[in-house]
Amino acid sequence: MTVYASSTTGPVNWERFLAERTHNMKSSAIRELLKLTQDPSVISFAGGLPAPELFPVREIEEACNYLLREEPKRALQYSTTEGHPPLREFLADTMAKYGIRHSPANILITTGSQQALDLIGKTFIDPGAPILTAAPTYLGAIQAWRAYQARFISVGLDDHGMCVDQIEDIIKKKKDTPRFIYVLPNFHNPGGTTLPEDRRRLLVQLARQHDLIIVEDDPYGALRYEGEDLTPISAMAPERTIYLGTFSKTLTPGLRIGWIVAPAEIVQRLVQAKQGADLHSSTFDQMIANDVAQRGILKVHVRKIRKIYGERRDTMLDSLAEFWPAGCSWTHPEGGLFLWARVPEAIDTQTFFKRAIEKKVAYVPGINFFPLGDGGNNAMRLNFSYSSSDVIVEGVRRLGLALKEALAE
Amino acid sequence: MTVYASSTTGPVNWERFLAERTHNMKSSAIRELLKLTQDPSVISFAGGLPAPELFPVREIEEACNYLLREEPKRALQYSTTEGHPPLREFLADTMAKYGIRHSPANILITTGSQQALDLIGKTFIDPGAPILTAAPTYLGAIQAWRAYQARFISVGLDDHGMCVDQIEDIIKKKKDTPRFIYVLPNFHNPGGTTLPEDRRRLLVQLARQHDLIIVEDDPYGALRYEGEDLTPISAMAPERTIYLGTFSKTLTPGLRIGWIVAPAEIVQRLVQAKQGADLHSSTFDQMIANDVAQRGILKVHVRKIRKIYGERRDTMLDSLAEFWPAGCSWTHPEGGLFLWARVPEAIDTQTFFKRAIEKKVAYVPGINFFPLGDGGNNAMRLNFSYSSSDVIVEGVRRLGLALKEALAE
Repeated sequence: MTVYASSTTGPVNWERFLAERTHNMKSSAIRELLKLTQDPSVISFAGGLPAPELFPVREIEEACNYLLREEPKRALQYSTTEGHPPLREFLADTMAKYGIRHSPANILITTGSQQALDLIGKTFIDPGAPILTAAPTYLGAIQAWRAYQARFISVGLDDHGMCVDQIEDIIKKKKDTPRFIYVLPNFHNPGGTTLPEDRRRLLVQLARQHDLIIVEDDPYGALRYEGEDLTPISAMAPERTIYLGTFSKTLTPGLRIGWIVAPAEIVQRLVQAKQGADLHSSTFDQMIANDVAQRGILKVHVRKIRKIYGERRDTMLDSLAEFWPAGCSWTHPEGGLFLWARVPEAIDTQTFFKRAIEKKVAYVPGINFFPLGDGGNNAMRLNFSYSSSDVIVEGVRRLGLALKEALAE
Repeated sequence: MTVYASSTTGPVNWERFLAERTHNMKSSAIRELLKLTQDPSVISFAGGLPAPELFPVREIEEACNYLLREEPKRALQYSTTEGHPPLREFLADTMAKYGIRHSPANILITTGSQQALDLIGKTFIDPGAPILTAAPTYLGAIQAWRAYQARFISVGLDDHGMCVDQIEDIIKKKKDTPRFIYVLPNFHNPGGTTLPEDRRRLLVQLARQHDLIIVEDDPYGALRYEGEDLTPISAMAPERTIYLGTFSKTLTPGLRIGWIVAPAEIVQRLVQAKQGADLHSSTFDQMIANDVAQRGILKVHVRKIRKIYGERRDTMLDSLAEFWPAGCSWTHPEGGLFLWARVPEAIDTQTFFKRAIEKKVAYVPGINFFPLGDGGNNAMRLNFSYSSSDVIVEGVRRLGLALKEALAE
């Protein structure tokens, strides 16, 4: 063996090896905020967590035992990138009930919906490529696509969701064809809004006129507490829509199982992207989700959480009306996990956050949901699925108190 | 609601929306080959599957039951991107036994080792950036990094692994500093080779002299069938090495749990990349792996599979010596799942594949492991972990027969 002089073991300058795109990548503001709310005495409306006391634990345990007795070699082995075939069949059937008529071959199972956003970024976004979203929009999408150096172009979001009528002007003015239009039609995160039928039709019309692609993100669609289901955009324009679904809100998020429904040539591209990303999603978790879904347990469970989350939403709406000062307003979500609250202009929700934490209550400041950081200064996102009704009342009361104090100064 | 003229619903030209990088992305050759070997009468040495009959099924069932009774709210809920803290602590302790002294804060849990490769690509690879690997090298790494448009630069692989002595000339000649050097020191996939201590030291010396980063991929390190453990490169140069481990080969691959050990500033970057990629790996699967590992079951299980895989390796080596014609040679792996076999120059292993399938036996042609497609024409990768000894004998016999027939023509 050669003997050689020892050389430096000093600190490595990693910066010079980093890819350009890392300059766009930041830790999620929410995840950083959540660290401040670890204190169990803080009432947190900040996260987007389902209520863990409602998880169908016994049913999942039954599924585990069944799978490990009947199909252990399959449940614990490598599997195909596309996903567990019976689960894809189940999802194709379920989607068909909502009018989305695609075969199991059009479905790709993902490691949560977040991976779907990442795979879409990898497949469609070149550095500087324009992406059209509403502002505010889902933070996880901003984060996923910033990593691919997307250039965000935004239209407004009002109490009926994305301002679809602004799209045409934006496209014409910018002379930039967006790689896709990102839309959260049902119970928007963070807006809590639902895109009405006419806006959905207008969006499809525009997309067809200008030959554009739509990414329809629908994590909460099954969690409707009032009104009737609306037609998914994917059902209106199956030829140009990539639909994203997930079990995170309806079953449990810890299993990390989501799915994409898209035209075959796009599924094929996304499968290639996923092969390089993680080969396939957990076989065991896919089979658990499939077992719970196939046995009809998911359906019963969704009915249960719809009832309870609906009550929690009502409690939050009632408490806001009772405890918050004049000059505030909020959306009235027909489903989902969140509402969007606006406070008087004198209050900046980023600086107000410190005061809220002193009162032991947390939320996410609105600015975090604006891809260009150009709005939401007087707004906040409030979650109503995680806390029990008693806690919601108390948290909203504390926030109301803090708002009144801030306004009095 | 506005009434508007219907517009085209014809096929969408998706191509024009695709990112540049998709031109580099292909379906894995192995995954395509595996489709040809679905026929259960085909003996497959092509995959890299662990033996499913050895999975510790009862122990995993116990873990599931325990977790769902004791910690269901945690096991099924969202968790931190970094990973389940007790698992990170366990891994830090385990790594320390191999001389890798890092704290749990230096460990990031990934969705299989494949995701670690993807996150490294996302963090370090700009389009056209040079990456230094051996050729042949792991196909999953080629696939992950092609998606980031890496430019592969390769050195040879001989019976002692990566030809580390070729690195310095390459770096000087190309005037390109690679973003990192990718090395599989233990039981190389596909080579079956082990990098000796002196080459490891030379690699570290070169990396320090030229201030380079090393990615040490070690999926098989615990599966050694003869000889002594060698010092991990990460233990020799902790300041500049990113180490990748996985439970896929030691426990089960279906759970998709791997990990990265790296300096803190790099873990932080990789955490940001992972947040956008899938938020976190399955909480449930992480806790199952942790439970099985903490209860000492993993250790016992690894001892068991080491014994059986070692016997299968011996069977394959003996069968090759018995059944294959003169002019063939193969590596003698000290561990892992694969060996690399070379056949006479007259035989191209890509065209020979068809003949092998006719004889109902499959392998992976060597060329697939060459990032530039510039070698391996007379080589193949053979897996010895998946099939029982009887099946291995028969498969090697069939391949020998096919080789003799081809040589006789």
